[in-house]
Amino acid sequence: MFQDFTVRANPAQAARHLPRLRAEMAQAELDHFIIPHADEYQNEYTPAYAQRLTWATGFTGSAGAAIVGRETAAMFTDGRYALQVRSEVDGALFSFHDISDCPPAAWLKANLEPGARVGFDPRLHSRAGASALERACAAAGGALIAMEANPVDAAWEDQPARPAAPLRPHPERLAGRSAADKRAAIAKTLQDKKADVAYLASPASIAWAFNVRGGDVAHTPLALARALVHADGSAELFVAPDKADAALAAHLGADVRLQPEEALGPALRALGPKGAEPAKRVLADPADASAWAFQELEAGGAAVTTAQDPCVAARAVKTEAEQAGTRAAHLRDGAALTRFLHWLSIEAPTGRVDEIGAVRQLEAFRRETNALKDVSFETISGSGPNGAIVHYRVNEATNRPLGMGELFLVDSGAQYEDGTTDVTRTIAIGAPTEEMRDRFTRVLKGHIAIARLRFPKGTTGAHIDALARAALWQAGLDYDHGTGHGVGSYLGVHEGPQSISKRLANVPLEPGMIVSNEPGYYKTDAYGIRIENLVLVRPPEPIDGGDRDMLSFETLTLAPIDPTLILPDMLTPDERAWLNAYHARVRAEVGPLVGPDVAAWLGEVTKAL
Amino acid sequence: MFQDFTVRANPAQAARHLPRLRAEMAQAELDHFIIPHADEYQNEYTPAYAQRLTWATGFTGSAGAAIVGRETAAMFTDGRYALQVRSEVDGALFSFHDISDCPPAAWLKANLEPGARVGFDPRLHSRAGASALERACAAAGGALIAMEANPVDAAWEDQPARPAAPLRPHPERLAGRSAADKRAAIAKTLQDKKADVAYLASPASIAWAFNVRGGDVAHTPLALARALVHADGSAELFVAPDKADAALAAHLGADVRLQPEEALGPALRALGPKGAEPAKRVLADPADASAWAFQELEAGGAAVTTAQDPCVAARAVKTEAEQAGTRAAHLRDGAALTRFLHWLSIEAPTGRVDEIGAVRQLEAFRRETNALKDVSFETISGSGPNGAIVHYRVNEATNRPLGMGELFLVDSGAQYEDGTTDVTRTIAIGAPTEEMRDRFTRVLKGHIAIARLRFPKGTTGAHIDALARAALWQAGLDYDHGTGHGVGSYLGVHEGPQSISKRLANVPLEPGMIVSNEPGYYKTDAYGIRIENLVLVRPPEPIDGGDRDMLSFETLTLAPIDPTLILPDMLTPDERAWLNAYHARVRAEVGPLVGPDVAAWLGEVTKAL
Repeated sequence: MFQDFTVRANPAQAARHLPRLRAEMAQAELDHFIIPHADEYQNEYTPAYAQRLTWATGFTGSAGAAIVGRETAAMFTDGRYALQVRSEVDGALFSFHDISDCPPAAWLKANLEPGARVGFDPRLHSRAGASALERACAAAGGALIAMEANPVDAAWEDQPARPAAPLRPHPERLAGRSAADKRAAIAKTLQDKKADVAYLASPASIAWAFNVRGGDVAHTPLALARALVHADGSAELFVAPDKADAALAAHLGADVRLQPEEALGPALRALGPKGAEPAKRVLADPADASAWAFQELEAGGAAVTTAQDPCVAARAVKTEAEQAGTRAAHLRDGAALTRFLHWLSIEAPTGRVDEIGAVRQLEAFRRETNALKDVSFETISGSGPNGAIVHYRVNEATNRPLGMGELFLVDSGAQYEDGTTDVTRTIAIGAPTEEMRDRFTRVLKGHIAIARLRFPKGTTGAHIDALARAALWQAGLDYDHGTGHGVGSYLGVHEGPQSISKRLANVPLEPGMIVSNEPGYYKTDAYGIRIENLVLVRPPEPIDGGDRDMLSFETLTLAPIDPTLILPDMLTPDERAWLNAYHARVRAEVGPLVGPDVAAWLGEVTKAL
Repeated sequence: MFQDFTVRANPAQAARHLPRLRAEMAQAELDHFIIPHADEYQNEYTPAYAQRLTWATGFTGSAGAAIVGRETAAMFTDGRYALQVRSEVDGALFSFHDISDCPPAAWLKANLEPGARVGFDPRLHSRAGASALERACAAAGGALIAMEANPVDAAWEDQPARPAAPLRPHPERLAGRSAADKRAAIAKTLQDKKADVAYLASPASIAWAFNVRGGDVAHTPLALARALVHADGSAELFVAPDKADAALAAHLGADVRLQPEEALGPALRALGPKGAEPAKRVLADPADASAWAFQELEAGGAAVTTAQDPCVAARAVKTEAEQAGTRAAHLRDGAALTRFLHWLSIEAPTGRVDEIGAVRQLEAFRRETNALKDVSFETISGSGPNGAIVHYRVNEATNRPLGMGELFLVDSGAQYEDGTTDVTRTIAIGAPTEEMRDRFTRVLKGHIAIARLRFPKGTTGAHIDALARAALWQAGLDYDHGTGHGVGSYLGVHEGPQSISKRLANVPLEPGMIVSNEPGYYKTDAYGIRIENLVLVRPPEPIDGGDRDMLSFETLTLAPIDPTLILPDMLTPDERAWLNAYHARVRAEVGPLVGPDVAAWLGEVTKAL
């Protein structure tokens, strides 16, 4: 299994760990120490050694921070985790704060005693974040101290080792573009911006720019590494030496010099002026380069230009080879998911399937493709009320059977070498209520509004998010997450800059980008509904009888949508036509890849409405 | 008539005026002088004396700029005016530039000779705009010179006098809030922002904050005035003394000190430190306060805080009295427009109606309400191909008859003391083509999508703009303007900050705001379609069976939509229900206000589809 079902929360551990941390803080003469969720690489999923916030507090969520003082401690989480944090973190040791209303900087400004020394690890904070903390400490009459070594690491006796998975070449046949060509494009950006060197701080950028994949991070084939790319296309790749073998060195070529990670600091300092040679002009992205990296660059005297990492926009637009790969991955994955849904249609009504069993069975079908590298995230397998928890992770304590008359929400994905998938289906176990069907049909209307949309050049995800919600809004309903996130090519299942959401989706949707289309509806303590397919942005094309070329979405995901949850009379003729055409396509493409029983079942559930 | 139909363009005038301007420039030792469209008050419609760009170039559009050199001159306009500028401005005297690709600052940077002296009038430029010009001149080795007096004014022999319309009190019964209360709210904002005084640079803010109206600007009851409001709620109002009589002074009360306009500069300077008294902290809005005002404030030593004019957000949310007033204004205006549409249905088929005749007749019906103060803008009256020109102004040269088989687009509005209206109807003269009906029905679908939308708190105009376009996008069609603009209460027909558009609509739609809902479609050289109603944002209310309160729009405008242009089969049941309910409301509310013939006709054209 690529995931487990252990109970991770351990509210008792903070009581054991805080005294050890406080001893280290006392030695460093710190009154407070700030612990963010982030690791040194701003990864979404952090390696075990970097889960410092969990170690110190017990909190297992994916975003948050803590400030540990000599006697008290404060915990900061967002609205999604308001309940979870109180069940995982000991309220006798921590005060709880909403990170939107009271972020750590505001807390420091309001609570810091004059003269206090506040420690932070500059490797774990962005430059902008560190500046805000610094201003807050100064305003309260305290001082922010950048620590050479992280006191959590010193206090953490059995801290796991750093991951050491090997770097592997990612075949050019799948990438569709050579690493040399990608570095030439980065070099071109540097020339345009009159800069000498780009600092790549993000493992996803390293993976893209060098056509490499790693295994240091759960569910995402990333290696912990950083790089400098120069205006002549040459580069230094900073990575633990035991991760790179001769085959990798051969793949990288002579223009790429492998360096140990410890060499990064000196290399950043060396970009300053040397004798008569002026300082190098260095491009760094304040969104992913840490405060530490900026410190090193400035200490050496480099001339820093802040700009978006040049890999980000380029990586988002998939090559023809990546597009072909993702289509193949989605067909394969759709067949596995269809087999699972067929299995579920037989087994769930027996009452013998529970949430964990469903996850195991789904992974088994995916393994039978013989192409599965990993799941792309921990499957969300929520029956009944658990389906209403948007970030639900099933464990042995929360596991429940799939009950008759309930909805079952399964959000899962796979990593294949040719593509990353992410798909959600909501299934009625037995007969659904009219309310469930009404809600499901409204979610489906929103899904179809995105799926069949045509739109002009320049349209962003923020412009179209409301189209996925309007049918819910009309009934006084909504969902508290974005409609879609960007997806990588055998990389992160969450990848920017594109998305479909009210906020932070101000990048035009460009041909070749992949985004999810996943409206939902959640009734607390009752059920959850989500319908998610991935879609690929198609190039603008002329529309019969129209004036202007329009972009559109190609739906990549291929799996049936439960017809027993649809109220056909709520669909417009256009919506019904889309659904029937989609189901006909699923039947035609997936049908031949599954056995006769599954194919017969698929024929039934995809019949035209 | 509140508008005329003269041909305003005069391509020959620049040849007469440029030599006079250049003589003034020579005297001031200027190599270039920059002439923006804006006046000293950043008005949308400028008084005749301030139409300096038209005087110098011949250009009559509503946005643009020129840079006049000793021998050459450059003209800058946006895409809307690409054709018009070439017909109005002498190409032998001016080079033409797209203001997006090459704004004046970029032109200066690229074309300025080292040592050149570039004059500008700091009263006519925002602080941000002036800074960009200054950087551009410096980069090219030139200097930007702030002129004490505008050389255009010196060169313009028959420059019209400044308007001197009296200020009138705007009744509290209509405003719904006393001026003292509004100034108290501004004072509260000042206290919150730890400032001492707000500089109000915009005539619309003056009109709102003091409950006054004027007549200095065409079609908008604004007075040319500025003010300082202090943290104790007292104020100085800077306005030409002959505009204010004793009745006005009584209305303003003892807390408002009237000052001549010339006193503004010294008053801004006087906000600096005085002896032991520290400098005043002054709130100024860089969007409407001029570079000159910032100069004066800084010269005097005031401490300037830039922030949005505190009147802007408050003015946008209409009081209960303003909402009641606008409903009454729209009912009155809808009756006048319905009488016009009935008249058109009889007269247009005779072939005797032309664009100008239609404007005259529409204004005549509005005058018969005995409440018309002005039109709210020059009526756009476009038959056939003229309807496809989004900013069309009919004049004696372009006037054409309403021909059979053509579409007629009429976009008009009125200023009443209780409210400002703005409405567009598109009418088929004779039988429309199937293409016209298809396009019209798509525009109508977009209009209805906005009209019947429910949406949660926090939704902005940028979030919902696409809903008005999706039916057009689907057919490869679109329109090149926003879907809606904010509207004032017996104030500007264009008023921020709210709007419905892809760009610049990042303000949440709040209960009490008025916006237009006006999708369109334009086929160049053939016809134009636009359907415009004003809508008022309703407070959030519970939805039967729903989880969350939703905001919605109340449609204010009451006039029939031409049924012969609708293809009923293209409408969903929900869309048809909206249209039938709207038409039933128009019949019920407007019917009793028009004569029996008109009412009978109205009954016909508003029959349920």
